[in-house]
Amino acid sequence: MRITLLTDFGTADGYVAAMKGMARAIAPAVIIDDASHDIPPGDVRAAAWALAAYWNRYPAATVHVVVVDPGVGGPRRPLALACADRLLVGPDNGVFTGVLTGGQEWRAVAIENADVMGDAISSTFHGRDIFMPAAAHLAAGSPLASLGPAVTDPVLLDMTAPVQSAGVITGAVVHVDHFGNLVTNVPAETVASGGVVVQIRGRRLPLSRTYSDVDRGQLLALIGSHGCVELAVRDGSAAGMLQAGRGDPVRLVPGAARST
Amino acid sequence: MRITLLTDFGTADGYVAAMKGMARAIAPAVIIDDASHDIPPGDVRAAAWALAAYWNRYPAATVHVVVVDPGVGGPRRPLALACADRLLVGPDNGVFTGVLTGGQEWRAVAIENADVMGDAISSTFHGRDIFMPAAAHLAAGSPLASLGPAVTDPVLLDMTAPVQSAGVITGAVVHVDHFGNLVTNVPAETVASGGVVVQIRGRRLPLSRTYSDVDRGQLLALIGSHGCVELAVRDGSAAGMLQAGRGDPVRLVPGAARST
Amino acid sequence: MRITLLTDFGTADGYVAAMKGMARAIAPAVIIDDASHDIPPGDVRAAAWALAAYWNRYPAATVHVVVVDPGVGGPRRPLALACADRLLVGPDNGVFTGVLTGGQEWRAVAIENADVMGDAISSTFHGRDIFMPAAAHLAAGSPLASLGPAVTDPVLLDMTAPVQSAGVITGAVVHVDHFGNLVTNVPAETVASGGVVVQIRGRRLPLSRTYSDVDRGQLLALIGSHGCVELAVRDGSAAGMLQAGRGDPVRLVPGAARST
Repeated sequence: MRITLLTDFGTADGYVAAMKGMARAIAPAVIIDDASHDIPPGDVRAAAWALAAYWNRYPAATVHVVVVDPGVGGPRRPLALACADRLLVGPDNGVFTGVLTGGQEWRAVAIENADVMGDAISSTFHGRDIFMPAAAHLAAGSPLASLGPAVTDPVLLDMTAPVQSAGVITGAVVHVDHFGNLVTNVPAETVASGGVVVQIRGRRLPLSRTYSDVDRGQLLALIGSHGCVELAVRDGSAAGMLQAGRGDPVRLVPGAARST
Repeated sequence: MRITLLTDFGTADGYVAAMKGMARAIAPAVIIDDASHDIPPGDVRAAAWALAAYWNRYPAATVHVVVVDPGVGGPRRPLALACADRLLVGPDNGVFTGVLTGGQEWRAVAIENADVMGDAISSTFHGRDIFMPAAAHLAAGSPLASLGPAVTDPVLLDMTAPVQSAGVITGAVVHVDHFGNLVTNVPAETVASGGVVVQIRGRRLPLSRTYSDVDRGQLLALIGSHGCVELAVRDGSAAGMLQAGRGDPVRLVPGAARST
Repeated sequence: MRITLLTDFGTADGYVAAMKGMARAIAPAVIIDDASHDIPPGDVRAAAWALAAYWNRYPAATVHVVVVDPGVGGPRRPLALACADRLLVGPDNGVFTGVLTGGQEWRAVAIENADVMGDAISSTFHGRDIFMPAAAHLAAGSPLASLGPAVTDPVLLDMTAPVQSAGVITGAVVHVDHFGNLVTNVPAETVASGGVVVQIRGRRLPLSRTYSDVDRGQLLALIGSHGCVELAVRDGSAAGMLQAGRGDPVRLVPGAARST
């Protein structure tokens, strides 16, 4: 019986603690793991990215709550879903894209049953009034179907895949992490088994194995912990050095490169 | 058996972890929920605000610890109190104002019993040496009265209420939240059932229902999750747009407004 | 059965949540206390400092995980150690210096047993793939020796001690905390029982007892919660006022000072 919690609320206003309190009022001893409260405000794509890093590392029956919800109070549906024996709760705004498109079966419902919500529903804070109470009910054993009617068309973010043409793979930076690493959407499997040159912002780099393969302050390309090509600077920030960010193109061409 | 923890310590110095360790040395399996460690340093008013958002969302018997304590080591009393079946522990500097003035009965004591403190008491870190050990003893079942003598005059912050005159309500911004929302002290109940115009910094706004009632980047007034009038910018910061903050006046006048 | 977790990851990328998920896959109900995820990136010295504040405040059998690991994937060993009935897990880069040099017996091993690791080992994220799984196995009762071969020469940071000459103690600032307090390496015990003058950046200060001994905005010297001499500004930042930081010298000379 455990819940994880991901928001863009920060913690200083007591909003996150209010959510935890609502869960404990329903399931006093439930384990609540903070995932993060530092998602950039309203950045659904960043939340989807973070969720992908951990949701299926947790054991079965975990309930993952995600409240990055700029459309709160509007027409977007409150969603609960089951996939690969984990449960997920949050707004229907694309934040579950990675879960829904990972190739595993899922079931989803719109949370409409007032019995699994708080007593009063504000129009600005469904994390407290709907999502966390519903998650606590799920954690306590309520079946998914008891929360509301089935949803078969949850919102999906547009996730561009890398394209391959004449041996050249063209992808993009999809995330900049806390260390300034530039994570791309090019999976390790698509990298040619022979040599490959990674091109970004006019730089040409071989594929290294880990940070310490280069000197401090040097740029490198490597396969990151998500299994995708990543640009990094040893003991530094690739985002800062290259002035690059989400959406910037990256190209992989066959051949042997010298670091430039 | 659960404790929540609110501080202005940040986490990077290990001070918060030291507090948690002290609690676990007394009550190893106690649930400890982080409320926040990001209260602005020494900002007792911000801590009181955050606490008000969650203290009574938690179930009975929860122990809420608040350590925003610029007067540590000086004459201010270490306090423990009971209200509405919850327990609270922290410095007697006004941080519990919302709890004490909410209209519910309370009992308070000064923590003086050395048996519920750490072995050595520093003059700079009572969170570790007094508050968290005392909270763990409360969580483990020690009665409030065992901590020390009764206190009947805890410190209260000066909380200005909105004033109503000739149909006009004049209140103030009392908190700026993580999203730049400007929360006022004007409760929803005082808003006339007919139309109302919210005036702040020369802007005149109708009362909207939720963020998506206006276009992205537009300012709106609405009833926030605390049940008070709030100024917000959809997908933006009202504090930034209006260059407004705590203490700025807000006026509500009867009538129908056009958003300006 | 409890784990604490200290990293320099921030939380927004989901890396910390991935670590927690790995622990729960092995030990679903283990207590996980966040120590901090805000250590400055790669700052092993800051991590060692924070750890010293809490590791032995926790009760016996706690497993402290520290992942500040700029050398991940390189030759540095993954370490597990036992000291004073607590267990510690992290990279062999000096982060455990305070534990290893505190005068208590310790045993250490290199984590090499694949049975206590994740299924796949990346070259960039041993927190998820090695350290947290190993910690969960320790928390669940696996003996230290089962993790790998003994290590007798763990890496130690160079920790300069204050020097005493002709009654004058010369030390240094070793940490700047969240409040801008300048913590030195001069322990309270070495301070002469008579009067002492603390000299830093041309300022001469007596030893005060606590912050409220001086007026708001005034600089003072006192014995901090670590038991060492500390410079602070009441309701302000000593680091900001003195433009001082880690490594800056501090001198203690006998005599009575007037605050200047």
